[in-house]
Amino acid sequence: MSKEIPYKIYLEEQEMPKAWYNVRADMKTKPAPLLNPGTKEPMTAAELSGVFCDELVKQELDNDTAFFEIPEEIRSFYKMYRPSPLVRAYCLEKKLDTPAHIYYKFEGNNTSGSHKLNSAIAQAYYAKKQGLKGVTTETGAGQWGTALSMACSYFELDCKVFMVKVSYEQKPFRREVMRTYGASVTPSPSETTNVGRKILAEHPGTTGSLGCAISEAVEVAVGSEGYRYVLGSVLNQVLLHQSVIGLETKAALDKYGIKADMIIGCAGGGSNLGGLIAPFMGEKLRGEADYRIIAVEPASCPSFTRGKYAYDFCDTGMVCPLAKMYTLGSDFIPAPNHAGGLRYHGMSSTLSELYDEGLMEAVSVVQTDVFKAAEEFARVEGILPAPESSHAIKVAIDEALKCKETGEAKNIVFGLTGTGYFDLVAYQKFHDGQMDDYIPTDEELKKSWAKLPVV
Amino acid sequence: MSKEIPYKIYLEEQEMPKAWYNVRADMKTKPAPLLNPGTKEPMTAAELSGVFCDELVKQELDNDTAFFEIPEEIRSFYKMYRPSPLVRAYCLEKKLDTPAHIYYKFEGNNTSGSHKLNSAIAQAYYAKKQGLKGVTTETGAGQWGTALSMACSYFELDCKVFMVKVSYEQKPFRREVMRTYGASVTPSPSETTNVGRKILAEHPGTTGSLGCAISEAVEVAVGSEGYRYVLGSVLNQVLLHQSVIGLETKAALDKYGIKADMIIGCAGGGSNLGGLIAPFMGEKLRGEADYRIIAVEPASCPSFTRGKYAYDFCDTGMVCPLAKMYTLGSDFIPAPNHAGGLRYHGMSSTLSELYDEGLMEAVSVVQTDVFKAAEEFARVEGILPAPESSHAIKVAIDEALKCKETGEAKNIVFGLTGTGYFDLVAYQKFHDGQMDDYIPTDEELKKSWAKLPVV
Repeated sequence: MSKEIPYKIYLEEQEMPKAWYNVRADMKTKPAPLLNPGTKEPMTAAELSGVFCDELVKQELDNDTAFFEIPEEIRSFYKMYRPSPLVRAYCLEKKLDTPAHIYYKFEGNNTSGSHKLNSAIAQAYYAKKQGLKGVTTETGAGQWGTALSMACSYFELDCKVFMVKVSYEQKPFRREVMRTYGASVTPSPSETTNVGRKILAEHPGTTGSLGCAISEAVEVAVGSEGYRYVLGSVLNQVLLHQSVIGLETKAALDKYGIKADMIIGCAGGGSNLGGLIAPFMGEKLRGEADYRIIAVEPASCPSFTRGKYAYDFCDTGMVCPLAKMYTLGSDFIPAPNHAGGLRYHGMSSTLSELYDEGLMEAVSVVQTDVFKAAEEFARVEGILPAPESSHAIKVAIDEALKCKETGEAKNIVFGLTGTGYFDLVAYQKFHDGQMDDYIPTDEELKKSWAKLPVV
Repeated sequence: MSKEIPYKIYLEEQEMPKAWYNVRADMKTKPAPLLNPGTKEPMTAAELSGVFCDELVKQELDNDTAFFEIPEEIRSFYKMYRPSPLVRAYCLEKKLDTPAHIYYKFEGNNTSGSHKLNSAIAQAYYAKKQGLKGVTTETGAGQWGTALSMACSYFELDCKVFMVKVSYEQKPFRREVMRTYGASVTPSPSETTNVGRKILAEHPGTTGSLGCAISEAVEVAVGSEGYRYVLGSVLNQVLLHQSVIGLETKAALDKYGIKADMIIGCAGGGSNLGGLIAPFMGEKLRGEADYRIIAVEPASCPSFTRGKYAYDFCDTGMVCPLAKMYTLGSDFIPAPNHAGGLRYHGMSSTLSELYDEGLMEAVSVVQTDVFKAAEEFARVEGILPAPESSHAIKVAIDEALKCKETGEAKNIVFGLTGTGYFDLVAYQKFHDGQMDDYIPTDEELKKSWAKLPVV
C-alpha cells in the first residue's frame, strides 16, 4: 500500500467508469419529487417529456437503478478529455507546511474549462438519439454554455444559449468560444421571450440570474418544434452524469490504497459536488465507510447554510416544475459584485435531502478570501483556478492548516472544477482592491422567501 | 506491437526524461556561433555572462555534450504539469476520413497555456541558483511572459516583462495572469528605456515587435544590479530545455511501437519545433532513422521560406549579439493584422543550419487557412488551439488529406503547442470576416535586408 504517489494519478482508459452511479438508489429517503406547479402533484414522465428528452426523463425519475451504462459514443467522447487527473498537491502541502495530504480532482483540462462537459455530452447524445433538431439552455459563468456548444457541435445539433447578462458582459470571450462551436448566445433577460420582457419590466436594469435565464430557455424549447431544454446542474440526471468525477476519483485513490478523510466541493446547483461525492456518499449510505463531506458555497448566495428546505420554483419566471430544496427564494438575485458562478438560488434536491439528514456539512466563504486562496494555489500549483472551484480550495487550505495545528496527516480530497482563464476581470478587481464581500441580510432573504409556493 | 492505442498516451512519472538532449552534439556542421556586434568575433562566455546566467551561457555554447541532466528541482516542477499527453486524434481522423494516423503532443495543459513553461522554469532555476534578484524578458503573444512569471513566482524571483504592444492591447487578460503571478508588465516599445524611446521616435505609432521588446528587456537587465535577461525562443539553451517535448513524444511512440513518418511543428523562433524534433533529428543525424520534418510558418512572417541565411541582429535595437539565421531583417515588423505569435524576424541558428543542410522542410500558410483548420480541429478534438499551434494543425490536416488520396496510413505527428483561450479577439475577427492574409512583398523584404550587418 505504500506505492509512491505520483503528482498526477491518471487512470488507464480501461479503468475508466463504464457506468454512471445513481446515489439515489442507496438513499433510504429518496429526494422529494418534482411537482407540477399547477396541480402540485408529482411530475409524470409524460409531463416532463415536453421539456426534456425522453431518456433523460427516465434518468431523472429513476430512484432505484444504481448503475446506468454509459453509451459507447459518450465513452468515446470522454476519452478525448478524460480520465482527468487526480493531483497530489505536493507543492501546496509544502507551502502550507502541513502534514495533511491534499488531493484534487482537476476537471479543467478541456476547452469548456470545467466539469460541465461530462453532462453536456450525455444530454446532447440523448437529444440526437431522439432525432431532435437542437436544444436550449441557460449559462451563468459560461462554462455550461461552452460545454453544451462543444457537445452539440460534436453531434451536429443546434444550440441556443441564454447567458446571464452580467457574465455575458464580463466574459465576452466565452461567447466567442461558443460561437466557435456554432452556438447562438443571447444575454438574459432578453426581449426575445415573454418571460424575459416581463422580468425586464419588473426589474429594469437587472444583471440577470440563472433563474431568469432558465425561464427564457425553457420558453424557447417548449415553443420550438424539435427542441428540448437541457440544464447543467441541479437535476438528478446531471448529478448522475457527473458521478464520473467521483468514480474516477475513487478508483484513483483505491489504486494507491488511499482512504479519503474528507471530500470537499464547491456548491452552486450541486453538479460538481453531487458528482464528486457520489460513490463516497454511496459507501456512507450503505454503512461501508465514513467520510466528512463538505459543501462550500459563497456567503453571497448561501443556499445550504442560510436557505430554507422547502418546495420552490426552479426559475424566476415560474415556468418550471417545483423542486424541494434548500433555497433562498426564486426571486433571489445575488449582488452583481459577486464574481460569476455559484449564483443559483436553490440546490439539487438530492443533495438537499442528504444535507437535511446530516450526511454532509456545508460552509460559506466570502469572495475575497476565495480569491486569496485562488492566488495562493495558482502560485504553487501552476493552475489558475476558476472562482467557483476556489471556494473548495479555500476550505481545503483551512482544513490542511487545522491538520498543521493538530499534527494529523489527514487525506483531504477536493474538486477543482475548472480554470479561471475567462475570469480575469474578477481577478483584476481582486488585484485592484475593488472586490467587496456582499452578504445578504436576513431581511432580503425573508423578502424572497415570501414568494415560496404553498404546497 | 499491436497494443491498442489509447486516445491519450501518458508516460508514467518514472518514464519522464531525466536529461535534456542537445541536438548540436550530433550535428556535423555546428550552428554558427553568436558574434559580438562590435568585433564580429564569436561571443565568449565572459561576454555573454553580462546578459545571461552563467549556467545558461554554458548550455548556450556547448555544442558537444549530448545530454544535460535535468536538476531535481526542475523535474519536480515538471511533474506538476508534465508528462503532457500524446494524443491520438481519432476524432479528427474520422472527420477527415483519412487512413493516416494523426498524433499530437499537447503542451497546453498548464496555466501559461503553452510549452514555454518548459524553458521558463529552467531559466528561473539557474537565475535563482546564481543568487540573482530577478530577470527581464520580452513576450509576444504573452505565453512566454506568463510562463516566466509562473516560474519566477515559484522560485520567488522578480520578473519584468516587456510585452509587444499589439498583444498587450489585444490580450489584457494575459497581463492579468502575469500579475496574478506577481510580474510587472510594460507595453513595448515603451518610454522607459533608451532603445524604446528611439524606436518610438523612428516608428511613431508602431504596434511593436519581438525585436523591439528584446532590446528593451536586455537594456534593463544589463543596467540593473542582480538582473539577467532571459529569452523564450531562438537560443540554443531554449531548444535544449524544450527537448523534453520531443523526448516524451518519442518515448510515448516507442512505448506503443509507433514509427512516425513525419513530424510537423509551427515555427516562430523555433522553441517548440526545435524541442519537438530534437530526438528524431538526432536519429536522422546519426543515420539511425529517417523522418520528414516540417516547419510551418505564417506567410506574413516567412523566415525559412523567404528569408536570407545570414548573420543578423537578433533585436531591433541592435544591442544583442549577431546570430546566423534565416532572417527577414531585424527591421521587419509583421503587419498588425497578423494574429499574435510567430512574429519573430529570425529563426534559431540550430534550426537554420539544419534547414540549410536540407534535413528539414518548411512551408508557409496564410492565417485565414490557419483559423479554418483551428476551428475544424476545435470542433472535433475538443481543444481550442492557439493560432500559433494551428499552423501545424493546418499542415497536418493537409498531409492527412494527401494520405486519403493515396490510401497511405502514414503516422503524422504534430506539436500542439498551446490553447487559444487568450486569442479570442483573433477568433472573433475570423468569425466576423475581418481577417485578411497579408503577405510581405519582395520589396519590403529587400528593404529590411538592407540593414543586414556586414560580417
